[in-house]
Amino acid sequence: MMANIQQVAQEAGVSVATVSRVLHGQGSVATKTRIKVEDTIKKLNYQPSMLGRNLRNSESRLLLILIPKISNPFYFDIIKGIENIAISQGYNILLCETDSSPERENIYFDLVRTKMADGIISMDPAVNMEALMELAENHPIVQCSEYAVESDIPYVTIDSEEAAYRAVKHLIKIGNENIAFINSDKRYLYARQRNEGYQRALKEHGLAVKEEYIYHTEHLGFEYGQQAVKSILNLEDRPTAVFAVSDLLAIGALKEIHACGFHVPDDIAVVGFDNIDFSNMTNPALTTIAQPMYKMGTLAVDMLIKKIQGNDVESIILDHELIMRESTSG
Amino acid sequence: MMANIQQVAQEAGVSVATVSRVLHGQGSVATKTRIKVEDTIKKLNYQPSMLGRNLRNSESRLLLILIPKISNPFYFDIIKGIENIAISQGYNILLCETDSSPERENIYFDLVRTKMADGIISMDPAVNMEALMELAENHPIVQCSEYAVESDIPYVTIDSEEAAYRAVKHLIKIGNENIAFINSDKRYLYARQRNEGYQRALKEHGLAVKEEYIYHTEHLGFEYGQQAVKSILNLEDRPTAVFAVSDLLAIGALKEIHACGFHVPDDIAVVGFDNIDFSNMTNPALTTIAQPMYKMGTLAVDMLIKKIQGNDVESIILDHELIMRESTSG
Repeated sequence: MMANIQQVAQEAGVSVATVSRVLHGQGSVATKTRIKVEDTIKKLNYQPSMLGRNLRNSESRLLLILIPKISNPFYFDIIKGIENIAISQGYNILLCETDSSPERENIYFDLVRTKMADGIISMDPAVNMEALMELAENHPIVQCSEYAVESDIPYVTIDSEEAAYRAVKHLIKIGNENIAFINSDKRYLYARQRNEGYQRALKEHGLAVKEEYIYHTEHLGFEYGQQAVKSILNLEDRPTAVFAVSDLLAIGALKEIHACGFHVPDDIAVVGFDNIDFSNMTNPALTTIAQPMYKMGTLAVDMLIKKIQGNDVESIILDHELIMRESTSG
Repeated sequence: MMANIQQVAQEAGVSVATVSRVLHGQGSVATKTRIKVEDTIKKLNYQPSMLGRNLRNSESRLLLILIPKISNPFYFDIIKGIENIAISQGYNILLCETDSSPERENIYFDLVRTKMADGIISMDPAVNMEALMELAENHPIVQCSEYAVESDIPYVTIDSEEAAYRAVKHLIKIGNENIAFINSDKRYLYARQRNEGYQRALKEHGLAVKEEYIYHTEHLGFEYGQQAVKSILNLEDRPTAVFAVSDLLAIGALKEIHACGFHVPDDIAVVGFDNIDFSNMTNPALTTIAQPMYKMGTLAVDMLIKKIQGNDVESIILDHELIMRESTSG
């Protein structure tokens, strides 16, 4: 029988993670340690093929990341965080775009059922929760960013209600009373939570919640933000501020407000959500809510690897931050 | 022995693609045809699990897409094209972010070597070509967008030299003689080709190629475009136009030109490359070269499936288009 990575680690007197770092040439390993690990690998004739390992001990060392659309930049830093930790621990990841289709999800679930992959990090707010919960009974699964309250599947996320509350409170503080809200579909938990935060901020300041100021978009994308603003600018009692639940919607809103001849922030202030890279490239730069996306990714994969190793893990709620830029400062 | 999809198709008198469409509930199938296919599936007791199929006839129906960075929006529409065709043909795709690391590429190559995946579409300009060519001797592989001239691996791409030539020619035509060029690393074929196009346009119009106007960035990203412009704006003989080999670089350039108090296009005109979604959201909107990305994706996967089925395929060079927007029109 060939040696496995655990035996190499034991013989060399280091952790499995260190052996993995040496194998992948990633992370920092002291030269002395590296040489010791390399000598042990030769001595035990250890062959570090990922798939070889798979056949030997039924671990694939592959993790699946479910995302609804790879074109949403919100996921980039989360994925970077997942990848960096996964690789340092000797795991590799495969990105699975579900397009929120249960059929496609099922293919990916099959990869876990047949042990071709070790576990799943789900970031799809429209995932088939029933199927995911069933899979979670026998396989390691973690939810990231979006989650289902009714499930026992652990998650890492932020407090969306509080974040939306702070965004709207900021708009009120700088003098806005008529604040439009571009939200996504109410079937998503984050959309419902952010709606609650929006309403709490208004009520706390004695402002009425006006139905005509609340706009629901079918998808997240520039064009949906543009469409929403077209309607909003046609309102008789035109809002002086717009809060959007996604930077993509907010950036579309910026574009359309400008196209209609209005000025941001003097005529209409705009706040987004996510702090995607591009939010700082717009003119004016966008005020937004930053989620600790990279950290969220590292924690999610850390939780998943712990679950794979048979440990219990607790859900985590991370802090957010309001990033003030030109779209709210005159 | 259980029935396979080919037998279902034959028995029902339809194509395999039609059976696949019925199974996945995607694309349009006449009700009469759908019922016939469903009846045949029941009659033959066909169980359409992707992985079941894998075990039965050693086809995984999984295709790997190698991309260097998922955060580059250039890939989005290509991937959409690949996915739509793949799914209609009963294949699923896994996205593999290589980070241009040979170690990570090798994990993905192993999935093909061990037949856990049927083939690869490589879009990584920094892929280890030697390893890819070796793999291609025994496995179906197609290159998309970026390719290696020295290999026999078929590719689908555009004429980068001609596209760059047209972009620069447009800048000359609207009155610019001092045109800076923000290029990426010369080790990439597309960077060398676009450099040739840039130089050909200048020479054809009797303009000197000035070394100080040519800037090479380490990576593609907003911040690299910003950095490049910082240097360019400090030149004694300040250029009146900038051509960037990627919209990401061009958008960073726009931002920095604006931050330095100059006006686009009056002081400095800007042309990008790729026509990513964002390029129409900037202020001013960006003039750019559009590649038929969706079509490129559909053709790449079509070529790959043909290769999997044992057919020969020819490389394809697609047309491009110059999209004129505000960043070049005063």
